[in-house]
Amino acid sequence: MTAVPATTVIDWTAFATEHELADAIFAELGRQTGDGVGITRECYSDREDAALEVFCSIARAYGFAIDTDAAGNMVVRMAGDDGEKAAHYIGSHADSVPQGGNYDGAAGIVAGLMCLVRLARSGRELATPVRVLMLRGEESAFYGRANIGSRALFGILDDKDLAARSRGKGRTLAEAMAATGIAVDPIRNGEILFDTQKAASYLELHIEQGPVMTDRALPAAVVSGIRGNVRHRKVVCRGEAGHSGTIPRWWRKDAVFAFADLVGRLDEHWRVLLERGLDLVVTTGIVGTDPEEHAISRIPGEVMFSFEVRSQSHDTLEGFYELFRSECRSVGQLRGVHFDFDDRVYTEPAKMDAGIIAMLTRAAEDCGLDPQTLPSGAGHDAAVFANAGVPSGMVFVRNANGSHNPHEAMDVDDLIKGTDVLYKAVTSTN
Amino acid sequence: MTAVPATTVIDWTAFATEHELADAIFAELGRQTGDGVGITRECYSDREDAALEVFCSIARAYGFAIDTDAAGNMVVRMAGDDGEKAAHYIGSHADSVPQGGNYDGAAGIVAGLMCLVRLARSGRELATPVRVLMLRGEESAFYGRANIGSRALFGILDDKDLAARSRGKGRTLAEAMAATGIAVDPIRNGEILFDTQKAASYLELHIEQGPVMTDRALPAAVVSGIRGNVRHRKVVCRGEAGHSGTIPRWWRKDAVFAFADLVGRLDEHWRVLLERGLDLVVTTGIVGTDPEEHAISRIPGEVMFSFEVRSQSHDTLEGFYELFRSECRSVGQLRGVHFDFDDRVYTEPAKMDAGIIAMLTRAAEDCGLDPQTLPSGAGHDAAVFANAGVPSGMVFVRNANGSHNPHEAMDVDDLIKGTDVLYKAVTSTN
Repeated sequence: MTAVPATTVIDWTAFATEHELADAIFAELGRQTGDGVGITRECYSDREDAALEVFCSIARAYGFAIDTDAAGNMVVRMAGDDGEKAAHYIGSHADSVPQGGNYDGAAGIVAGLMCLVRLARSGRELATPVRVLMLRGEESAFYGRANIGSRALFGILDDKDLAARSRGKGRTLAEAMAATGIAVDPIRNGEILFDTQKAASYLELHIEQGPVMTDRALPAAVVSGIRGNVRHRKVVCRGEAGHSGTIPRWWRKDAVFAFADLVGRLDEHWRVLLERGLDLVVTTGIVGTDPEEHAISRIPGEVMFSFEVRSQSHDTLEGFYELFRSECRSVGQLRGVHFDFDDRVYTEPAKMDAGIIAMLTRAAEDCGLDPQTLPSGAGHDAAVFANAGVPSGMVFVRNANGSHNPHEAMDVDDLIKGTDVLYKAVTSTN
Repeated sequence: MTAVPATTVIDWTAFATEHELADAIFAELGRQTGDGVGITRECYSDREDAALEVFCSIARAYGFAIDTDAAGNMVVRMAGDDGEKAAHYIGSHADSVPQGGNYDGAAGIVAGLMCLVRLARSGRELATPVRVLMLRGEESAFYGRANIGSRALFGILDDKDLAARSRGKGRTLAEAMAATGIAVDPIRNGEILFDTQKAASYLELHIEQGPVMTDRALPAAVVSGIRGNVRHRKVVCRGEAGHSGTIPRWWRKDAVFAFADLVGRLDEHWRVLLERGLDLVVTTGIVGTDPEEHAISRIPGEVMFSFEVRSQSHDTLEGFYELFRSECRSVGQLRGVHFDFDDRVYTEPAKMDAGIIAMLTRAAEDCGLDPQTLPSGAGHDAAVFANAGVPSGMVFVRNANGSHNPHEAMDVDDLIKGTDVLYKAVTSTN
């Protein structure tokens, strides 16, 4: 691990309230990993190390032990925990996107550490211990692959991932991992480096990356599942180009009018399916006529667009995808166009464990919170643990302005409410 | 005028039929101005001169006189016509787009010359003589301005037009005109160089540039008017960008879904207005999200598009434009987006003269043709003459594959039917 100046000047045990402690942690993270615009903690770099060192200094201040696992992630355990028993892992990630915010990832680690501090102060001994798992490399911004730190634990990083270069042009992921002191060969060989028998659960607290909780006035909420998706990077709608003035409506094969018709139909299906209670979002993030050919007075002969549908349900994803293809055929027949599709890319949704959801929901109610559950639209390490068979669950904390930008706005009071839910959950089952 | 090899080897009076004469003219034009792919007759260049020389050689073979007007256009008159009396001008253009077809423009001059040949052979003397006006520079492809040859006659070329460079980088239009022997100063000064008192009418035959006549099995048809248009080069629909997975439908301000909604509404209005008998075409030739920002999993915060509506009717243009702006407001309210508009550009429709339309339609009926009239979606020199107060009319000839490409496909039999209409019209009023 690259040497980082230790934050020896702060006495982490001296804060009167959790609120003050959390404020001090985020302030120190900002000092150590600020980039002038926002926060940058590139995975497997000295900036991620710096964030981890802030967390480690707190753990040391409270007498906790710190282990580094085979993928360079760090585990904090209490003095009385020898690390051998099955535990509740409260996990989150230490890295960030370039010019990101201070809360995405870090909030979950702070919540985990606050749970350990509460336990240490209370003197309680739990039958199932609580450990904090500080993961590396959750963000895909630097190497194109998300959840590197958790995927490495479960042998699902491939050669292509390890050969990817930072931002496409820096050192490779394998080089960066090796420089951090990680033995890369076992990871490359797909070895399982996490003993799932030692995990009673994987619990992750994260800021919400959408506006729902702000709108519904929910300080903290339980996550029902992590949405999967079906995508096409590029669909091309092909009609027939022509002079806009000379070709009447009944003769046209206008690719843009056909695209608009298709989107209108998908929007209507979406509306109806939401009313029936399905979990669904539909997006066409990229649209464009061909700059080599397009002109104001030219009937567009072709338009390309991306397609994405997300849902927590595999059946909803596949059902909506069929509807999409069917509407493409129908629009094609009606308007004399056809659609060409590139490779379909499918990402499995991740189910949060029903028992864990019940446990967290009960804990939320016990804390006096509205027990609403919410889907996660973005991916999280919890999906990797869930799909690896670890009973997993998540708690979201209210946050304005989305994430992956310097304007993330989480109130520390809400983080403490989310921490209450985690703490209540792990202590009431013990 | 640049020296061009005279086509002395062809005896233009020796062909047994008009069909053979026309075939020979188009073949010679192809030899003189072919570019290997299609036809290129750049205006005010030796290629336009070469085409004009082919036409002049025919005129000379039949003993017709040739005048060059103050804008370098050429007028062919019969031996008995001293050029002083008011005449029917049968006009069209000698230039072409790069890699264009052989019929766009040339067909109209051939038709005019065939009328004169018929008159010469018949020995008829007309109270109102017929002259053929061979115009230069109708296409906008080289200098960005259409109808240069006719606009020069009416003082409506400006300094910007004259300073434009061929294809943006060659010599200026003023230089090209001067090289052709034209005195540019009177044109630059906006002098009127055409005596409208000498024009009983301006009649133009042109290939149809759309598919309507092919579809309706009309060999020739009378043009009802030349469509004007209202355009925006760039309208921007602005919503709010965000993570596609985390922002639900009810919260979204999705610019692409809003654009699709808008186009769907315009398409429906268009359909209904056509059923009510209005003349209208609506086109969005350019659409695109911002490549700097767009991503598959990003709710598009903005999309830009072009807008064009065309009609023969000023009222329809303005009415539909109001509807467009009104639907933008409505979609904006419904979907939380707003629309920004660049400068609106208006091009006036040109009315063909009612008396001329009646004369041509009667002539078409007398020739046994279906007297359907058709709008012209593209611009023509006839619009310049009409807007300058010359009673104007047009005859379209059936043509497959549109124009401005080497695949124009006109049957010479159809050209002769169109010529019949012109000939019948100018002789039956005399």
